[in-house]
Amino acid sequence: MPELRYDPLKSRWVIIAVERARRPGDFEIAKEERKLTACPFCYGNEDKTPPEIFAIRDPSTAPNTPGWKVRVVPNKFPALRIEGDLIREGVGIFDKMSGIGAHEVVIETPHHEVSLGDLTVEEIKNVLIAYRERLNDLRRDVRLRYILIFKNHKAVAGASLSHSHSQIIATPVTPSIIVSELRVAKEHFTRKERCIFCDIIKQELAIGSRIVFDNEDYIMWCPFASSFPFESWLFPKKHSYDFGLLSDEELNSLAKSLKELLLRIKLTLDDPPYNFVLHTCPSLHPRPGKPDYWGTIEYDYHWHLELVPRLTKIAGFEWGTGFYINPTPPEIAAEYLRKINIEL
Amino acid sequence: MPELRYDPLKSRWVIIAVERARRPGDFEIAKEERKLTACPFCYGNEDKTPPEIFAIRDPSTAPNTPGWKVRVVPNKFPALRIEGDLIREGVGIFDKMSGIGAHEVVIETPHHEVSLGDLTVEEIKNVLIAYRERLNDLRRDVRLRYILIFKNHKAVAGASLSHSHSQIIATPVTPSIIVSELRVAKEHFTRKERCIFCDIIKQELAIGSRIVFDNEDYIMWCPFASSFPFESWLFPKKHSYDFGLLSDEELNSLAKSLKELLLRIKLTLDDPPYNFVLHTCPSLHPRPGKPDYWGTIEYDYHWHLELVPRLTKIAGFEWGTGFYINPTPPEIAAEYLRKINIEL
Repeated sequence: MPELRYDPLKSRWVIIAVERARRPGDFEIAKEERKLTACPFCYGNEDKTPPEIFAIRDPSTAPNTPGWKVRVVPNKFPALRIEGDLIREGVGIFDKMSGIGAHEVVIETPHHEVSLGDLTVEEIKNVLIAYRERLNDLRRDVRLRYILIFKNHKAVAGASLSHSHSQIIATPVTPSIIVSELRVAKEHFTRKERCIFCDIIKQELAIGSRIVFDNEDYIMWCPFASSFPFESWLFPKKHSYDFGLLSDEELNSLAKSLKELLLRIKLTLDDPPYNFVLHTCPSLHPRPGKPDYWGTIEYDYHWHLELVPRLTKIAGFEWGTGFYINPTPPEIAAEYLRKINIEL
Repeated sequence: MPELRYDPLKSRWVIIAVERARRPGDFEIAKEERKLTACPFCYGNEDKTPPEIFAIRDPSTAPNTPGWKVRVVPNKFPALRIEGDLIREGVGIFDKMSGIGAHEVVIETPHHEVSLGDLTVEEIKNVLIAYRERLNDLRRDVRLRYILIFKNHKAVAGASLSHSHSQIIATPVTPSIIVSELRVAKEHFTRKERCIFCDIIKQELAIGSRIVFDNEDYIMWCPFASSFPFESWLFPKKHSYDFGLLSDEELNSLAKSLKELLLRIKLTLDDPPYNFVLHTCPSLHPRPGKPDYWGTIEYDYHWHLELVPRLTKIAGFEWGTGFYINPTPPEIAAEYLRKINIEL
């Protein structure tokens, strides 16, 4: 059974996932993408994954057979487990809890060689629908506090299989970076009755130099204090706190903008490895004794997507301090991303 | 001029280092260690680095010539600059300050092919003396709030040259992870009048399963909530808040323990890439209007060294959330590190 342990010095939880690589020799293998004789994410190999949880498929086809467009399955090597009781426990000065959660894989396309940005807008929309459906379903489980949707593109960025996929990890605690963001947003709103993200969007639009594109619904820019070269954020322009509330039509517009973002990154940086993470509001179940725990979150939070191309190595300085050195000013990154010609 | 920018959402400063790689094509080159015809860290090439700031050398030799044992020089491509005024400025909703600081390189040995753990105890002691001397000297600059000493071993861990070296970066703000540690330590002391690190050492010694070795002066263990496989901490057993106060004799004992730690990591994990970071107390200059800003730090803080072998990739989940998945429980890592045979 995996375990969550709290680091009292760094004020964060860590997942100790006992059923993954563990012996000294295991890490050699983990260094490269696993080479499998048959890709478990391709048509005809549906039995090589755990049974599907969700799929968008030709209605004439049966679950766990070909005919799907997007397919969501449990991760075969989950970092957290859905079964069991959530037990919180002190261990002397330390704290732990059982590794309850969910770990799912969104197979974005049946085509082995295609990457997310190369899919059609309609196909990307289907991936986004899968995200939304799984998010809303997992939120029903009161044990789960945050549902994290993210993508690792290429081995350098942590992808263990090359067939295009995203992942969903649901955790019984809210991750520390999200907690920080939620806290800052709430403080800003309490003081000013404005959304901090809306304020930032307004300022970025007025300055202009960090904007990559903006259309009726979405805006992409390189943030003022980018931690990494070509770090890129995609925000809905209208205040919106929860990705889970988006309609199919709104997801269609998002699919268009996400495709543009991914193509600009791909063409500017020669198809780099990347990670993106969807930041949306946590599960809003009341907490024991705190029925109004989430307060003004509807007004103070703003969902968005953060993407980081993996161009530089995270070295000792960054890891040991949380203090990043970014060699590319966001104004210069935005200029490169803006001027590349893309066809949509 | 480099710049520090504050990320209001992640509550951290980022260095925007404009004089390093910046264009899309530059990152290809950065992926591998730079191949140079003549290593600037070898004997005879002293003129290929900026002039030395500190060296332990044969007294009959001149600065910037061969004959040194350890040599400290400014980084040729510094992330921060020592010249100029520290200007703090608001930019609309954002904050920035000038990129004042220092960035130095500690060349640990004249021998090109040798790594730190393979040096003799005497040679490692000389490296530690260089750390201490530079730390204490940089602390005299009231603009600098934290002096970070760290090492990247091998290209995967961020080393751009293979000749064994460490780095020193002095920053005008205290890095966020250190701030968190300082805050936790102070809160613990305020409540209990005990050092939290001493409490943890006591508990780890009582449990024993995460201890790798302990001798009269030092203790190495794999922390309870290790973020990475085989993460290892080295602490002085006696309460000691400041690495800068260690005597040569104390550094000799530390050199022995550091060598043991490095050899255990090397032999257990087949000479892995690693990062280590020295955590010590910040510069203690009083802050404007706050003469007693650092309060009880002498009692509440405990210097130490944290080492992480780079065996796994930092993926989207970790980067986007600050929430790490560690596949190797520290109890198992400690068992492997303990049982390897080393000769000292």
